[in-house]
Amino acid sequence: MRDHGLLVNTATGLYGWGAQLEAVYEGLTRALSAEAEDARPVVLRFPPILPRAVFEKSEYVASFPQLFGAIHAFQGDECAHEILERAVAEGEDWSDRTRLTDFVLAPAVCYSVYPLYGGTVLDGGKTVDASGFCFRHEPSTEPGRLVSFRLREFVTIGSPADAAAWFGTWYERAPAFLRRLGLDVRVEAASDPFFGTTGQVMAENQREEGMKAEVVVPIGDHPVAVASINCHRDHFGRIFDIRSADGEPAHSACVGFGLERLAFALVAAHGPDTVRWPDEVRALLW
Amino acid sequence: MRDHGLLVNTATGLYGWGAQLEAVYEGLTRALSAEAEDARPVVLRFPPILPRAVFEKSEYVASFPQLFGAIHAFQGDECAHEILERAVAEGEDWSDRTRLTDFVLAPAVCYSVYPLYGGTVLDGGKTVDASGFCFRHEPSTEPGRLVSFRLREFVTIGSPADAAAWFGTWYERAPAFLRRLGLDVRVEAASDPFFGTTGQVMAENQREEGMKAEVVVPIGDHPVAVASINCHRDHFGRIFDIRSADGEPAHSACVGFGLERLAFALVAAHGPDTVRWPDEVRALLW
Repeated sequence: MRDHGLLVNTATGLYGWGAQLEAVYEGLTRALSAEAEDARPVVLRFPPILPRAVFEKSEYVASFPQLFGAIHAFQGDECAHEILERAVAEGEDWSDRTRLTDFVLAPAVCYSVYPLYGGTVLDGGKTVDASGFCFRHEPSTEPGRLVSFRLREFVTIGSPADAAAWFGTWYERAPAFLRRLGLDVRVEAASDPFFGTTGQVMAENQREEGMKAEVVVPIGDHPVAVASINCHRDHFGRIFDIRSADGEPAHSACVGFGLERLAFALVAAHGPDTVRWPDEVRALLW
Repeated sequence: MRDHGLLVNTATGLYGWGAQLEAVYEGLTRALSAEAEDARPVVLRFPPILPRAVFEKSEYVASFPQLFGAIHAFQGDECAHEILERAVAEGEDWSDRTRLTDFVLAPAVCYSVYPLYGGTVLDGGKTVDASGFCFRHEPSTEPGRLVSFRLREFVTIGSPADAAAWFGTWYERAPAFLRRLGLDVRVEAASDPFFGTTGQVMAENQREEGMKAEVVVPIGDHPVAVASINCHRDHFGRIFDIRSADGEPAHSACVGFGLERLAFALVAAHGPDTVRWPDEVRALLW
């Protein structure tokens, strides 16, 4: 990718990109809109930042402490500033010179969605088309494993039947969409990267109960998950106090597409020059 | 804005937005591309994150310590995780439970550009069209003062004459562009929000020497800077070791447009329904 001038590397797992790749992201954004159109979702876009209050409520810290990014800021006077400046200049660890702010980096986009329905009783299912930059602290040179990336999520919140239907729909539709983009697609039972020894048990349960599936495609020789389909049961309904019409905690499900991984997989499959991509792929994107 | 369903508020200075506003951002992105086209810039897009090594080198901490966001992550074991979880659950300050990572939030987009030319001697001026989300830790309810926002920058790096010409060009062109969008425009000598008492002197010098100008438009009754034109002299050339053809530290200049502020000013000027905006404005954007 870098050899073809598509990416510029700025740090491990962090890249800038050029006009050609930006056009691929725009094309994927458009094609995914068309794909979800029949559900008439509420369209919401979010900044890369999540309020800390939402994050703390979300139980993310319990499950994935190794992945989140908290935003710290300097909040001192001129004396403290001198000490901070010196620490930075001398290459010292200046972790203790800043304090936690009211903000964290968004670990996924749907965490910004649930609070909007918090404390309400839904009159039927709600479907949201949400997108934004996410952060995961797992710097790596593994293809497609980025620290900062764009996630496009189609989320439904409603009855257990609504959530199960959404999971079932996208279990079929996500791989079909990716096949139309000319990708070699495999669907796998999956689990989230829960932390620690208790986490391993949670991951096994999740896998056994069929609550998460991933759509895996190759980036070169590496199989990479470019989409995931998730059934949350009443996890977020309970946490954010969203109730379905019968007064019970709402269920939710979402499908998420990683735009960078998808774009990298398309480049790996069809070559670095997007003008030469197959006509049927170009027609879907542009 | 919120009353018209254009924005959803998630925290002080932090908003999600809907399809209509997203279309305005896309329109502004396109119109600004057209505006800078004749300079044939290298197009680069960046994630909201900057490598900490670049940030530490940039001298941002010396000038604007009150504004940056540093990214912290949890890097402990299962015992440390229990302590972290308990602190979060009990609403304690958990600042000390995380450590600084190799990443900070991008305070401006051009900080991602200079390192790409670091250690080189330029064969003529380089012009870059750069864009990405930026972070400034100044949570506020003031219109247009956001914690996280998109900045579009046109940067030139070259001889002192190249940089001066770029500043002069955009000193004329930025306000002319905004007038064509139907905005009531004023250009003002400006200074950056340097920290502390030494900072006040630096700000006065910057203003006296005409190194920064802002294009100010109203958002309702509030005058807000939606674009700034900046001459950096050899500041970044010196820091990042970029040299112009004669071997001297390169000079640089940039113009930056705040997309959110611009969009808010357009809504304030032309109303919440973009379909009813004046034809000449619509023609520029879409």
